[in-house]
Amino acid sequence: MTGKAGDVIVVGGGIIGLASAWRLSLAGARVTLFDPAPGSGATRAAAGMLAPVTEAHYGEEELLRLNLESMAAWPAFASELEQQSGLEVGYDRSGTLAVGYDPSDKAALDELWRFQQKLGLESSPLSASACRSLEPALSPSIRGGLDVPTDHQVDPRQVGAALLEACQRARVSIRHERVESLLVERARVTGLRTGEAREERAPTVVLAAGWRSGEIAGIPPGLRPPVRPVKGQVIRLRLDERLPRPARTIRALVRGSFVYLVPRRGGELVCGATSEEMGADSRVTAGAVYQLLRDAQSVYPSILEAELAEAITGFRPGSPDNAPLVGPGGMAGLVIATGHFRHGILLAPVTARIVAELVSSGLGEGWERRPAIDPRRFSRRAGR
Amino acid sequence: MTGKAGDVIVVGGGIIGLASAWRLSLAGARVTLFDPAPGSGATRAAAGMLAPVTEAHYGEEELLRLNLESMAAWPAFASELEQQSGLEVGYDRSGTLAVGYDPSDKAALDELWRFQQKLGLESSPLSASACRSLEPALSPSIRGGLDVPTDHQVDPRQVGAALLEACQRARVSIRHERVESLLVERARVTGLRTGEAREERAPTVVLAAGWRSGEIAGIPPGLRPPVRPVKGQVIRLRLDERLPRPARTIRALVRGSFVYLVPRRGGELVCGATSEEMGADSRVTAGAVYQLLRDAQSVYPSILEAELAEAITGFRPGSPDNAPLVGPGGMAGLVIATGHFRHGILLAPVTARIVAELVSSGLGEGWERRPAIDPRRFSRRAGR
Repeated sequence: MTGKAGDVIVVGGGIIGLASAWRLSLAGARVTLFDPAPGSGATRAAAGMLAPVTEAHYGEEELLRLNLESMAAWPAFASELEQQSGLEVGYDRSGTLAVGYDPSDKAALDELWRFQQKLGLESSPLSASACRSLEPALSPSIRGGLDVPTDHQVDPRQVGAALLEACQRARVSIRHERVESLLVERARVTGLRTGEAREERAPTVVLAAGWRSGEIAGIPPGLRPPVRPVKGQVIRLRLDERLPRPARTIRALVRGSFVYLVPRRGGELVCGATSEEMGADSRVTAGAVYQLLRDAQSVYPSILEAELAEAITGFRPGSPDNAPLVGPGGMAGLVIATGHFRHGILLAPVTARIVAELVSSGLGEGWERRPAIDPRRFSRRAGR
Repeated sequence: MTGKAGDVIVVGGGIIGLASAWRLSLAGARVTLFDPAPGSGATRAAAGMLAPVTEAHYGEEELLRLNLESMAAWPAFASELEQQSGLEVGYDRSGTLAVGYDPSDKAALDELWRFQQKLGLESSPLSASACRSLEPALSPSIRGGLDVPTDHQVDPRQVGAALLEACQRARVSIRHERVESLLVERARVTGLRTGEAREERAPTVVLAAGWRSGEIAGIPPGLRPPVRPVKGQVIRLRLDERLPRPARTIRALVRGSFVYLVPRRGGELVCGATSEEMGADSRVTAGAVYQLLRDAQSVYPSILEAELAEAITGFRPGSPDNAPLVGPGGMAGLVIATGHFRHGILLAPVTARIVAELVSSGLGEGWERRPAIDPRRFSRRAGR
């Protein structure tokens, strides 16, 4: 890394903005990060599954490669972050068990397994009784599953807190202010204006404001990242010592619906998530909580005895092709890092590295372009 | 009422303690009420149904008479309370519709109707389509119901706030302190000791501390009211203007389980309640929320679109025979008013009147004994 990084503003203090700010700062940049409440958005709601293998989808092989690249970076990222912050991030290698509830859920998992095999991913089919040997409290109704030992998890709230601490130790200036608009002068981004009408200038601005990235004023409409809020509702259960706890993440298909149970040390069980195209409606709904509990108790009945400790809504930043937007923003001075959809936690290490490399290269020189995630794939001129 | 009331201490600031304190004060007593958080217990969790007719049970005919007596007192009690406090209490005369979900739920309602007829209570059987004419958003699955126009509701939180205000205007002294024990001297209750070890003396103490009434030290074990906490979990939904709202309270039997939906002005819908013999475990559980949502959506599907605004636990003060304990406590200076189980809101007016009359009579002289609710029916001497 070179001194080319200079002064950088990061807009957004979710895991992507914080990780980018931290990496930029380590690369020699003087970084100022703006967020009214760092770590409080999608990062706070996320379950923290690092699950490229169980989340492999047909037609998204390129995204899978990026996911695997970031997965490979996670262990070193986590240990460096813990070392530099002095805080734990809950990196947990106990693996993932995917289970199917009825015959067609099981058939869908079999199909996923064949796809995983074709791609050379580590995954083993398990009978129902083998699943219940691994997790004795699973319902006898399940039809079988897949053992995916390489899909891990972190605790996103711990990661967020550790990144904030690491940023502060690396002298990132954290400003608890809302960004109203970017300043654009002669087709170049030169800074921003806050909600309190204060201006802050820097030669480089990284836009990492999650689903709100498309709402920041100042960027010409054709260059605004086309991200939308995809509502996810998540509940947190608290298991007391009398209740069985999953030893690993359980992902279940239940009558065609997907539900996960992510156990944390200390007895918390994160159960999610809905995926709703409802705009930025942050209400927790009766229907979402009902559906999550119904599906979760179908595969893991004893959760009904647990305390319902929290119900929360987050908004994934969805993009038109489900791949993130990470790279040059189509204007001098602008870098974009958003659109991570379901994969913001998983993709944080690789995103932060790309952002730091791009800024350090002086936005382009000698920087290896990645077409699949280049934000400019959605750019359009006015009038087209 | 006479000046005999004198100085009175009331232990407990739920609806029973507050209503008693208010009535005692109006009867000329100087009242001091102790509660660390008035209105925060079962009163806060309660739905506020005034439903003696739909809650009529075989074998509880005497309790039914008491319920009807208090029901008859409610309209005047509510209007006097509103007048004296300047606050609304949400008295709502829109009535109650009981519905049955499956054939055996319907059969149970038919049986209830025959019992109501025998007792001369106002209740009319309705076909499924007649139910849905009254409440168009009911599920087409329901099998029929009963129209009970005389079962009403109040908002217990509003009642609690109004009673607190009325008490203050009537110069009741409200002390936000926990009561540790009653003071007993020569077989006579003479006051109390607070958690901060302060003493307060009065010739009459009214014990109205809900399920905790049996835990207050100082009373000889054989005279302690045998009340226990019966856990109830309740959720509150918020219906926005796009969603249908019930025009009246709906009480449903769903596959043998009972669930109610109580609409409030402003779009709140109170949905409850579990009945659990779990001791004083105040956790909201996944199973309770799941069961309430499952049963409620079976009869009123659109609630799944509502916001889940609150989940709360309360403890009904249960007695061995389900009837309250209201009357002399078996020791000079002691009056008991607890054990109201499911009927604390309904029975507040009659309880407060009995307490005020008893204290004004000098604890007994010329006071008409009510054997069915006399606390002394459970008294036993040490060693028996």
